[in-house]
Amino acid sequence: MKAVVYEKPFSVTVKTVPEPKILHPNDAIVKVTTTCICGSDLHMYEGRTAAEPGIIFGHENMGIVTEIGAGVSRLKVGDRVVMPFNVGCGHCRNCEAGYTAFCTEVNPGFAGGAYGYVAMGPYPGGQAQYLRVPWADFNALSLPPGTEHEADFALLADIFPTGWHGVSLSGFQPGESIAIFGGGPVGLMAAYSAILRGASEVYSIDRVPERLAKAQSIGAIPINFDKADAVEQILQLRHGEMVDRAVDAVGYQAVSGGKEVPNTVLVSMVRVVRATGGIGVPGLYVPSDPGGVDPHAKEGYLMFPFGKFFEKGLSIGTGQCNVKHYNRQLRDMIIAGRATPSFVVSHEIRIDEAPAAYEKFDKRIEGYTKVLIHPNA
Amino acid sequence: MKAVVYEKPFSVTVKTVPEPKILHPNDAIVKVTTTCICGSDLHMYEGRTAAEPGIIFGHENMGIVTEIGAGVSRLKVGDRVVMPFNVGCGHCRNCEAGYTAFCTEVNPGFAGGAYGYVAMGPYPGGQAQYLRVPWADFNALSLPPGTEHEADFALLADIFPTGWHGVSLSGFQPGESIAIFGGGPVGLMAAYSAILRGASEVYSIDRVPERLAKAQSIGAIPINFDKADAVEQILQLRHGEMVDRAVDAVGYQAVSGGKEVPNTVLVSMVRVVRATGGIGVPGLYVPSDPGGVDPHAKEGYLMFPFGKFFEKGLSIGTGQCNVKHYNRQLRDMIIAGRATPSFVVSHEIRIDEAPAAYEKFDKRIEGYTKVLIHPNA
Amino acid sequence: MKAVVYEKPFSVTVKTVPEPKILHPNDAIVKVTTTCICGSDLHMYEGRTAAEPGIIFGHENMGIVTEIGAGVSRLKVGDRVVMPFNVGCGHCRNCEAGYTAFCTEVNPGFAGGAYGYVAMGPYPGGQAQYLRVPWADFNALSLPPGTEHEADFALLADIFPTGWHGVSLSGFQPGESIAIFGGGPVGLMAAYSAILRGASEVYSIDRVPERLAKAQSIGAIPINFDKADAVEQILQLRHGEMVDRAVDAVGYQAVSGGKEVPNTVLVSMVRVVRATGGIGVPGLYVPSDPGGVDPHAKEGYLMFPFGKFFEKGLSIGTGQCNVKHYNRQLRDMIIAGRATPSFVVSHEIRIDEAPAAYEKFDKRIEGYTKVLIHPNA
Amino acid sequence: MKAVVYEKPFSVTVKTVPEPKILHPNDAIVKVTTTCICGSDLHMYEGRTAAEPGIIFGHENMGIVTEIGAGVSRLKVGDRVVMPFNVGCGHCRNCEAGYTAFCTEVNPGFAGGAYGYVAMGPYPGGQAQYLRVPWADFNALSLPPGTEHEADFALLADIFPTGWHGVSLSGFQPGESIAIFGGGPVGLMAAYSAILRGASEVYSIDRVPERLAKAQSIGAIPINFDKADAVEQILQLRHGEMVDRAVDAVGYQAVSGGKEVPNTVLVSMVRVVRATGGIGVPGLYVPSDPGGVDPHAKEGYLMFPFGKFFEKGLSIGTGQCNVKHYNRQLRDMIIAGRATPSFVVSHEIRIDEAPAAYEKFDKRIEGYTKVLIHPNA
Repeated sequence: MKAVVYEKPFSVTVKTVPEPKILHPNDAIVKVTTTCICGSDLHMYEGRTAAEPGIIFGHENMGIVTEIGAGVSRLKVGDRVVMPFNVGCGHCRNCEAGYTAFCTEVNPGFAGGAYGYVAMGPYPGGQAQYLRVPWADFNALSLPPGTEHEADFALLADIFPTGWHGVSLSGFQPGESIAIFGGGPVGLMAAYSAILRGASEVYSIDRVPERLAKAQSIGAIPINFDKADAVEQILQLRHGEMVDRAVDAVGYQAVSGGKEVPNTVLVSMVRVVRATGGIGVPGLYVPSDPGGVDPHAKEGYLMFPFGKFFEKGLSIGTGQCNVKHYNRQLRDMIIAGRATPSFVVSHEIRIDEAPAAYEKFDKRIEGYTKVLIHPNA
Repeated sequence: MKAVVYEKPFSVTVKTVPEPKILHPNDAIVKVTTTCICGSDLHMYEGRTAAEPGIIFGHENMGIVTEIGAGVSRLKVGDRVVMPFNVGCGHCRNCEAGYTAFCTEVNPGFAGGAYGYVAMGPYPGGQAQYLRVPWADFNALSLPPGTEHEADFALLADIFPTGWHGVSLSGFQPGESIAIFGGGPVGLMAAYSAILRGASEVYSIDRVPERLAKAQSIGAIPINFDKADAVEQILQLRHGEMVDRAVDAVGYQAVSGGKEVPNTVLVSMVRVVRATGGIGVPGLYVPSDPGGVDPHAKEGYLMFPFGKFFEKGLSIGTGQCNVKHYNRQLRDMIIAGRATPSFVVSHEIRIDEAPAAYEKFDKRIEGYTKVLIHPNA
Repeated sequence: MKAVVYEKPFSVTVKTVPEPKILHPNDAIVKVTTTCICGSDLHMYEGRTAAEPGIIFGHENMGIVTEIGAGVSRLKVGDRVVMPFNVGCGHCRNCEAGYTAFCTEVNPGFAGGAYGYVAMGPYPGGQAQYLRVPWADFNALSLPPGTEHEADFALLADIFPTGWHGVSLSGFQPGESIAIFGGGPVGLMAAYSAILRGASEVYSIDRVPERLAKAQSIGAIPINFDKADAVEQILQLRHGEMVDRAVDAVGYQAVSGGKEVPNTVLVSMVRVVRATGGIGVPGLYVPSDPGGVDPHAKEGYLMFPFGKFFEKGLSIGTGQCNVKHYNRQLRDMIIAGRATPSFVVSHEIRIDEAPAAYEKFDKRIEGYTKVLIHPNA
Repeated sequence: MKAVVYEKPFSVTVKTVPEPKILHPNDAIVKVTTTCICGSDLHMYEGRTAAEPGIIFGHENMGIVTEIGAGVSRLKVGDRVVMPFNVGCGHCRNCEAGYTAFCTEVNPGFAGGAYGYVAMGPYPGGQAQYLRVPWADFNALSLPPGTEHEADFALLADIFPTGWHGVSLSGFQPGESIAIFGGGPVGLMAAYSAILRGASEVYSIDRVPERLAKAQSIGAIPINFDKADAVEQILQLRHGEMVDRAVDAVGYQAVSGGKEVPNTVLVSMVRVVRATGGIGVPGLYVPSDPGGVDPHAKEGYLMFPFGKFFEKGLSIGTGQCNVKHYNRQLRDMIIAGRATPSFVVSHEIRIDEAPAAYEKFDKRIEGYTKVLIHPNA
């Protein structure tokens, strides 16, 4: 089968590789109808991780079940399914408690596993024609048959739940105001989630005009941090009043004044959130970043305004999204026509176009913001 | 000043009565700009309560502060405010815990007080030109100056928070499906709240075409229980699948097959909610109803399907709405343009028109569903 | 192997039956070291259910894994485990959300399955030398090797979590007061749970002196409802103040004044709980009870004081215990020496003694309150 | 009246000052029976704050109401009361939501007020014979008449609720394990709270033998960080398994290896808490510390291991304790004999002994750990 394979920094190719097989009674094989390129794939693509050549990318996958193991009891061949990017076993303490992003069994020595990602366990990615899904009854979310809502459903694998998760981590309640730092796909999904959940005001902070336009189109208030300090702009719009919640959809490669300043979003959030408010951090921070801007950043340490944070009595919730905790309800909102997250999708391509798409997405040119691959098209 | 005064069953008049005065340092006097007629006023109007002649009606009140007591520190003369229908002291155990509908101090011997309502304490109603507000710093919600959103804000006194409360009592979470029994003002507000909070599907059950049309206009699915059993209709639409939550916005005077059957909504909810789901009951049930259909109903007892309720592992939350728990966020949603509850308002009148409006509202004629009085217009 | 088999009303025998086998890759076989007789076994024993002769009893089981299916990845042969009485699949919507008592897959057409119980699915009980455990990685809780805490751990299968669940269903918070109706094994576990979780006052209501003495021995305040109305006694002790929470550990066969009065505990709870409080009902209520005291009771309907319940703004949570939601933490409390639920155990016997023990337990004679069987001793 | 007055660094005196008077209708005057010296008083005593000479210390106060303003309706002269250290208005957004430590009205320009503390508003302290209590109905917790439990009740003003709050901020649930950093009065109260709430294991980390002995006496496991790295010790005791929760009861003046290392406790907590766990920080951190060890610390910035924190999906809750959120239930636990926090009290003195006690407490000599002053004894 064809698969998108990592070759070396700034280079992926489409190769012919062996099809996956059932390796365990609880496995299923899925013929991939849609798989997405994620911003976090670019970390590997750019060579800023320990990813080795040969890895098949792709952790946002959906398709049709073509084969099931002897232990699979819920899924049937022919079922249409979407898989969370996390791989979970379904019976460790964390999975049982709903923390499927922190499964302690699928990736020994670590809490959490995923498809097609360095250090996340032995699970080839889904930017390929077929995908092996372990503990398939647990990991695959069933979808209505057919092809309707394909792009919306594909986003259930990661970014829609991840944006929603960021809002939840902040402690958000309906009627509150919230500032979303970052207008990329996850940031837009966070802004969209806050709106769907009854936010009174949503501020979307970025500097890319297309992103700010998308944010505005769904009802958020765009804030361009290249024009002036984002916090000052928000305070001015609100007559000096801070917001209730903030979400960091940027992560450790945040920039300010044209250069990488890893703590800049965190500092801004502590400034803009009112006393007793909350902060959600779905944006990636890593404990080891060889490309970090200073020795502390290389080890995942940041200067944090803990004094102010404490004085305001703030809280922070962090971590990768437990996709299964949200994907069922979000699927139902899509089916009912209440949510259409696919507004973020910029391109849909065949698998042979993937190498070029990676390059353009990495350079953020030609409007490449969210790319969906149809490997069997 | 002019006030709407209860005379006898099926008769209210507009009388000249003394203006209220500051009786306690924490009081304020409010010049009423808008006050609403509530369905629960009709219980008194129809003579089905112990209300004595002379009581001034009106528990949904907003206006402008004209005078404050020596202990009032937050409010200022000229402030525009809306008052929850509940009167709370702000320092009893229940008020402190947010249960302001169950204040143990304002109405000795009972948990809960209100304006203009029999047995709810010594607080004249606001269907009058002026209103005395006790513990005014605690009870009055501040509004932006001016006259914008007047009708929306007036609904913050009772029905918008009460509908929202019903949804909360059911344990509702975004993405879930919910059935709202009753399409009167509170039922419509409950349906609207569920939609604002991200429901996937909202079913609105009534038999009055105008109400069902209103429900449909905001995105709910109308179910006319005169055409067929409501539960069967919902199950059919959902291919046999039950809903996650239900709300009873009808109460003890529920009808079925053309006659009063006090437990009919409760039974339907236990049928239509799936195992592990939840039920919210903002609709009024009373422990003493002399007009009840049988000796049990007269004492507030109902036949309840407890066996099925337990087998499904359901939960029920009940009680009058703690308006202060919700009114601030709902106000902010109105200001931000995200909520416009005034779509339920059918008539806005001068105080002299109140007697006629009561009569028409009681007879449910000429489209009288939600009437706002402007006593100083 | 030997097993306790139901013969006819008031008769079980120990028979030799075939040993269970692995039927599915996710099964495990457990050699039973301890299994308990539960009060709910008596419903079948007394012939008040549709249980057919031949059923092997026993839903409270622990032992040693002797064989695993090809799909089992966490458990190993030799592991010491205790099984929740519920059988769950681990991947249906309810299991995923932690509602393992309402699994929709293990018992088609119903939400919930269990071992050795009529209508709860095709799962023979564990009052036998061996037990088949489906979805074993999900259903078996691992225990420290050895034989320490055997009796305490055995109670993790049902009654300790069930008592804890009742307290949770009531909405209990540390520092609150609570009334537990029923001083049988589940009632005592509820009282014990409330004490472990920081209750200020726990009232334990029963009429059996031994049970009341047990309750007192763990720090609860015993209330003998044969001496005077239980609610009146509690109010008198509290100078008229009601309690925050109540738990019904009695169920539908409640008695009052010497005869079965199915709603008596529910009515008492609504009386004794203060406005805004909560009620938890782990005690069994059934939608069909051919032996019920009247036509309504036969269909699971009860006269419920809904008017008073609403006026007080109370909530009720019900349903069988989702054992997996609690058993891990309770196990850790036992290991750390903080919890010793085995104080309720009255007898430990060999399997051959089971028929006699059933008879005495059913007659409540010779102090038979909680019996543990060691089938391989 | 006599009062403990700040003179200059390392010096307080007992002076005669004017008695407080009713300044507002909602005020009450309390004759102080007990007031405590708090560790945070030492910040002012040591001259590490902007406190001016003349300030009356004392934010942990209880006594008897001797006078009430015209607006006070709940309290009566003669009532025995204990005041939270926070002063709240009872009607701002934060007070209404239960965040009484962040009142926006009592201390303009800041969220939060307190008695007898620099920058916390115009509220003289209670280390004096009389105290003015603003919004007395809201701020004073009623106690049973008499003198019973005096020392226990005095601790309701601050440290018992603050320790309890720390445990709550960590997201703790019954049955979990928790590490409490710091064995001073607040740390001991946190350990005690965790035990009262059903912790399986509580680790208490300090290096003062008396504190570790106290911790052990209530059932905690003492960890002396002078002997070896605290995290390593805990992991060794737990066979490599991390704990569920951690609490920082130390704050920004944390020491390690004999010198001040402001982030040392935070770093240790991120190491010792397992993925998906939580951290509570009641220990004080300040946004401006002129005595800080480096330029960052002077402005309240700390090096925080955000990468590891995120990878583990941890959460942090912080801030001063909202005493009113807890003091009622804790009072009830004391009355019922379930909690006896006074085990931490080392000395009870007359007001004239206060200067000497401050000196010894500051030097941590002669066992001075928690000192209670009886100003009218």
